[in-house]
Amino acid sequence: MVDILHRVGVTAAPEKVYAALTTVEGLAGWWTTDTSGDEDGVLAFRFGEVGGFDMRVLEKVPDERVRWEVTDGPDEWIGTTVTFELTQHDGWTIVLFEHAGWQEPVEFMHHCSTKWATFLLSLKQYVETGTGAPAPDDVRISDWH
Amino acid sequence: MVDILHRVGVTAAPEKVYAALTTVEGLAGWWTTDTSGDEDGVLAFRFGEVGGFDMRVLEKVPDERVRWEVTDGPDEWIGTTVTFELTQHDGWTIVLFEHAGWQEPVEFMHHCSTKWATFLLSLKQYVETGTGAPAPDDVRISDWH
Repeated sequence: MVDILHRVGVTAAPEKVYAALTTVEGLAGWWTTDTSGDEDGVLAFRFGEVGGFDMRVLEKVPDERVRWEVTDGPDEWIGTTVTFELTQHDGWTIVLFEHAGWQEPVEFMHHCSTKWATFLLSLKQYVETGTGAPAPDDVRISDWH
Repeated sequence: MVDILHRVGVTAAPEKVYAALTTVEGLAGWWTTDTSGDEDGVLAFRFGEVGGFDMRVLEKVPDERVRWEVTDGPDEWIGTTVTFELTQHDGWTIVLFEHAGWQEPVEFMHHCSTKWATFLLSLKQYVETGTGAPAPDDVRISDWH
């Protein structure tokens, strides 16, 4: 099993990052504008023709940690978990990100790793400035979008 | 052992990407302006006060693959390998990136994963437009730069 790991630091308070990770409005501000569902149950993230993901919220610790399990989406994603850990460091809120439990390091995993980085920078921009770059206006990184 | 994986696609020809990965001038265009050394031996990449890395060129297959071994730099990097695989797909040149052989998924590895993504997008921009975002004008992602 292999994992995608990332780390970004933001100058906004942890409460603001936590809200961006746990509310439909917040998630729509940096990941995809087509976010819906139950903030304590299953969240649905859609990306137009590309499809999307359903995430069951496994854990929510205010200002500290959010954890999801992928319940629907591409085969490679199902059963994987996505975790955001928040810590504080000299006025920065640090987001440690892990998308864990991939079966194989397939080419699609390489793509998702780079794509997650761009979305985490969109999260940073969203909590710092109020404007992120969620799909469909996300950063294009390749033929796979 | 854990690996950092990424994938970007560029609209430039493989020869152009290969040149950006194998010449001092090309590498200085997207990774760090302070690049020097022997293109067939050990390359030195420096990032001001942050330090830098020495990479021994292990493999160079024109327009297909470049592989380095880290011979000097942060402890966590020494002995790891960095591979760029180039393939073609419907007019795109695909760069599959792997920074392999990390001993542990430490916080610094999370940081380097995100940072590599930003540099690979700098590579994309450099080969497509002639202008990348190499250090010291690289994208700041956190307190760790």
